[in-house]
Amino acid sequence: MALRKGAGRISSSTDEERKNLLLSIAEALDCSREIIRKANDADLKNAEEKGLQPSLMKRLAFTDEKIDSSIQGLRELCSLPDPIGKVLEKRELDPGFILERVSFPIGVIAMIFEARPDALVQIAGLSLRSGNAVVLKGGSEARNTNRTLVDIISKAAGSDWILGVESHEDVSVLLGMDGYIDLVIPRGSNAFVRYVMDHTRIPVIGHADGICSVYIDASANAEMAVRIAVDSKTQYPAACNSAETFLVHESAAPVILPNLNAEFLHLGVKVRADERAIQYMPEAIPSVPDDFDKEFLSLECAVKVVSSIEEAIEHIAEHSSHHTDAIVTESEEAKRLFFQKVDSADVFCNCSTRFADGFRFGLGAEVGISTGKIHARGPVGLSGLMTSRWLLSGHGETVAEYSGRNGKSFHHKELI
Amino acid sequence: MALRKGAGRISSSTDEERKNLLLSIAEALDCSREIIRKANDADLKNAEEKGLQPSLMKRLAFTDEKIDSSIQGLRELCSLPDPIGKVLEKRELDPGFILERVSFPIGVIAMIFEARPDALVQIAGLSLRSGNAVVLKGGSEARNTNRTLVDIISKAAGSDWILGVESHEDVSVLLGMDGYIDLVIPRGSNAFVRYVMDHTRIPVIGHADGICSVYIDASANAEMAVRIAVDSKTQYPAACNSAETFLVHESAAPVILPNLNAEFLHLGVKVRADERAIQYMPEAIPSVPDDFDKEFLSLECAVKVVSSIEEAIEHIAEHSSHHTDAIVTESEEAKRLFFQKVDSADVFCNCSTRFADGFRFGLGAEVGISTGKIHARGPVGLSGLMTSRWLLSGHGETVAEYSGRNGKSFHHKELI
Repeated sequence: MALRKGAGRISSSTDEERKNLLLSIAEALDCSREIIRKANDADLKNAEEKGLQPSLMKRLAFTDEKIDSSIQGLRELCSLPDPIGKVLEKRELDPGFILERVSFPIGVIAMIFEARPDALVQIAGLSLRSGNAVVLKGGSEARNTNRTLVDIISKAAGSDWILGVESHEDVSVLLGMDGYIDLVIPRGSNAFVRYVMDHTRIPVIGHADGICSVYIDASANAEMAVRIAVDSKTQYPAACNSAETFLVHESAAPVILPNLNAEFLHLGVKVRADERAIQYMPEAIPSVPDDFDKEFLSLECAVKVVSSIEEAIEHIAEHSSHHTDAIVTESEEAKRLFFQKVDSADVFCNCSTRFADGFRFGLGAEVGISTGKIHARGPVGLSGLMTSRWLLSGHGETVAEYSGRNGKSFHHKELI
Repeated sequence: MALRKGAGRISSSTDEERKNLLLSIAEALDCSREIIRKANDADLKNAEEKGLQPSLMKRLAFTDEKIDSSIQGLRELCSLPDPIGKVLEKRELDPGFILERVSFPIGVIAMIFEARPDALVQIAGLSLRSGNAVVLKGGSEARNTNRTLVDIISKAAGSDWILGVESHEDVSVLLGMDGYIDLVIPRGSNAFVRYVMDHTRIPVIGHADGICSVYIDASANAEMAVRIAVDSKTQYPAACNSAETFLVHESAAPVILPNLNAEFLHLGVKVRADERAIQYMPEAIPSVPDDFDKEFLSLECAVKVVSSIEEAIEHIAEHSSHHTDAIVTESEEAKRLFFQKVDSADVFCNCSTRFADGFRFGLGAEVGISTGKIHARGPVGLSGLMTSRWLLSGHGETVAEYSGRNGKSFHHKELI
């Protein structure tokens, strides 16, 4: 497979070379607006004939503004430090016998993503910056745009490290190529991510559901609590980092819930409240247990009154999808307990769950948000696309010398 | 599943608590030698009746000496720094708005391993030190010994974080528990590791074959080259980090190969040599192409003369299992090229491939050696059993404040 060779070439290229390729792609996109527009128009026309939803049409449209921001994104990738060759550990095993663990690209990554053509440019840029070859399978609605973009990128930066595939059958082929592809990153519905995991031996970084919660502690500042709850729920309800569940300490409930109720009514948020919460939220629907396991992704939420912070932590352990969970509190002790016990990718104190995002975290662009615990967790930036190698430099050392009763022993001195 | 709760308890225990539990286990083992011996005798008797090979019988025997070294291993784990709570990244998103990425146990790990009872103690110790719960499935030949050891460990350090399972059917059940088990580490044949990967949605860290090679460069010190080749091949031929393939630069061949031939003849190493190498190794068998894709695991090897370092690097890319590959050279330029281009877990210069080992690397005990590229690569110590969480501490920040044209912007200041 040619990509394997391309991966080898690009993994040993210099920082400067990869930056120059990124800038070439940015320039090529800028000069190809006409061709891109034609291809995108064809996709939009097909989509309209098929009756695609307006929200999806909007995502499919690769407007001049989106091209601008894609170009901007590629330029910003150049400003991030080179992810290749970072010395992660350095240890002297014995005088002059030096071991280093150094970051290195994973190799060939397959990304399967939704219709947005801007995602293609971003993912190609991240792969190139991190020295990885990439196979891109975009949504079929964007077929013409994606093909054109891969073509422009290949012409500007070489075709041996990037491959666009188009059909659904290609996905099955990709998932079977465990000798050639090192990592699969599917972006899509939970069902799709599970399908991918079930049909491949290749490691998968999954971007699954977000059932995020905000716990409002006994000691919370009431104004702050309502502000954070409102932002977590309403700032962009369709995002995976929006809150679905609010847990309120019983001693805070009489102050918090009437205010929260007023805000939610005002903003059109439908509330499903348990029997203790509904006393303060008379317009709410009585909750059923399932409501606390739901990702609403809309202006709906579930509210529950808890008797203690421990009950909140237990509720989160049982019902959260371990994406992002936040506490609002003025107590250092409550924060400490929450941070110690809540095993989610992102654990926040006194801020909105909506901050769970690679850009806001300062990771540069993001590949997605992983709710898995292996390799990468939470927002995944360039470092999630890296592995490492152990480099050992000696002067003729043999294991025989270090064996047996009279053998030499290691001194294992940390150098960083 | 009780283990999930146990994982929660142990992940939030203190360094001191986990150390004390390790010392309790060490003491309990020391006081239970009689019970252990009886259980092990029963296993040895069954194994003898079944006609188990002497080498396997030797691995199965849990002698007093092995108990001593298991106890010693547990005590040494206490001297390693606490792997939990290490701050891996720290960044100020905006004044006073602090993001940290902090190490945290993975949760519940399933280890499926071979007959050696000392492996059980080591793995249980590593899990406890790293704050993980563990499901242990040992070889059925060691059933009585393993059951006794799990019993002793549970009594000494609590039973909620450790579970021993025994039957083959249990393995299928384990592999299906993707809601409860976070990581599977199989140790065994390549076929077994593949079987595990094919039958689970749980991430797998695989310990696969080692087709390791030593490339002897044009500029190699001849005496050192032969010494390293001999150690890499003969110091312990059954280990996965032993060399199987020797690549020798054509200009070094006339000096190196006759000496290597003499050593290998003396030590009983059978050589399969390509047509250029066989001129210097008259006793060798002519090699067939397959010989360079074989893990001999015995006193056999394949030797090939190459025309350049590039040819050696290409050979490794095509035939190595990317476990450990070494160069012997006096040239800084050749070393640089080899280190840049060879994409194996361990890349060595001027030392034996046999150094690829967690203890020798200074990782403390090792869980195994991963030839996968995701999560952990090469020898896997405690850090391979860790994931991380993002902890964000604010003062009421909302994403709405940071949005739109007049929104605040992040300053993303690195604090470590």
